[in-house]
Amino acid sequence: MNKKPLILVTNDDGIKAPGIRALISVANEIGEVIVVAPDRPRSAMGHAITINKPLYFKEEEIDNGPQSEYSSSGTPADCVKLAIHELLSKKPDLCISGINHGSNSSVNIVYSGTMSAALEAGMEGIPSIGFSLLNYDWDIDFSPYKTYVKKICLEVLKNGLKKGVSLNVNIPHIKKREIKGVKICRQADANWTEKFDKRISPMKKTYYWLTGKFINYDKGTDTDEWALENGYISIVPVKFDFTDTNYIEKLKNWNFDE
Amino acid sequence: MNKKPLILVTNDDGIKAPGIRALISVANEIGEVIVVAPDRPRSAMGHAITINKPLYFKEEEIDNGPQSEYSSSGTPADCVKLAIHELLSKKPDLCISGINHGSNSSVNIVYSGTMSAALEAGMEGIPSIGFSLLNYDWDIDFSPYKTYVKKICLEVLKNGLKKGVSLNVNIPHIKKREIKGVKICRQADANWTEKFDKRISPMKKTYYWLTGKFINYDKGTDTDEWALENGYISIVPVKFDFTDTNYIEKLKNWNFDE
Repeated sequence: MNKKPLILVTNDDGIKAPGIRALISVANEIGEVIVVAPDRPRSAMGHAITINKPLYFKEEEIDNGPQSEYSSSGTPADCVKLAIHELLSKKPDLCISGINHGSNSSVNIVYSGTMSAALEAGMEGIPSIGFSLLNYDWDIDFSPYKTYVKKICLEVLKNGLKKGVSLNVNIPHIKKREIKGVKICRQADANWTEKFDKRISPMKKTYYWLTGKFINYDKGTDTDEWALENGYISIVPVKFDFTDTNYIEKLKNWNFDE
Repeated sequence: MNKKPLILVTNDDGIKAPGIRALISVANEIGEVIVVAPDRPRSAMGHAITINKPLYFKEEEIDNGPQSEYSSSGTPADCVKLAIHELLSKKPDLCISGINHGSNSSVNIVYSGTMSAALEAGMEGIPSIGFSLLNYDWDIDFSPYKTYVKKICLEVLKNGLKKGVSLNVNIPHIKKREIKGVKICRQADANWTEKFDKRISPMKKTYYWLTGKFINYDKGTDTDEWALENGYISIVPVKFDFTDTNYIEKLKNWNFDE
């Protein structure tokens, strides 16, 4: 029998979120599983880490396993660091994050705790994938999408991933039979147009809720937004070298002399 | 007389940090200035936004101006959104963030609130720059570096920036006469090797402090780390399309069929 791969599972919706419970059940079918996830929802955290306060974690037993599980007071990125540098004696073969309740397609990636955990693992040299389902409901049924999640994990375990790259997987919330397959995409050039909802508290203090509308400016048919709108699961290979290498030569012609 | 450019200033160390006070004084020499910055330090926040609690801001008068200033309960990215969508009636010509107390070179960018504010402005189509000084001391003297900061702002105002790109500027903490100039660079392939400092509280609870050592694996002489070690101010053009376009074709050969 082959040795089972070691799989680290995390998320940003918290260790009890239905999305991570679904992901754990997929991981259990593939390998030996350790879960290290936030003890409460940590959405829209971006790539935050905790440097100004102490971190706690504790062992959890949320279902019948067989995975081992820990909840942490930290962010998703903290959870990955804790797992790798404190809890595990060897490097995981794969790190999977999610399944996020809601989209991380296009520019949503920059706000995403789910993807920050995946990128953190990637920076540690661990093949990593973030999964998101395009529905924010807490009680959504993730089971129809499990076969796709499993297949994507198996392909990454088989082929490995290039150093410096993680996968951003988004799943449209449609009936399973309507899913046309998996599409490799680029990140769409989209944006949030923010509106602040201004309100007055009972104590007469003005406060604001951030609201916004997602607008896709990108007409390409090779983007994640196009794939998702057309019934495909989108996979964007994401790198954490953010340099715009094409722009370097142009900037070299500028004059920065005092 | 030409119309003065409108400059939005923010940071992640909080509105009273010496670094932003230095940046404001430079901005005042160039244009009309509005400051919207966190009311307290918000370091290592990554690209967090506040969606689960209300946001507050209030007008501030910290020095003799002439800038207008607002502190906010939000993250650096929130501050940029608030400024653009609530406080300003027209789009700023430039958004500058910092001067950060500490480095945001190489992979530090992913944890950086300073750069997340710059990227947020960039996503709104505003030319933007994040500035960081390689020293964490609160009482550091930023004045020797002001002429460089000003020159970089003026060049961006003159030339504009390509859509989708922000500049990540890091300044070595050396004597001004030792600075050799400005270098356009790529992000170095470096990493943090984390260590958790395990302690026991007086209540006998185990907790951890995140500590780490920055390791530069990159031997290239075109990186920001090389530039900073060799007496240059580094500028990395940073894009917020994170797609690894070169890797797309390779992934298309994988088999994701169920």
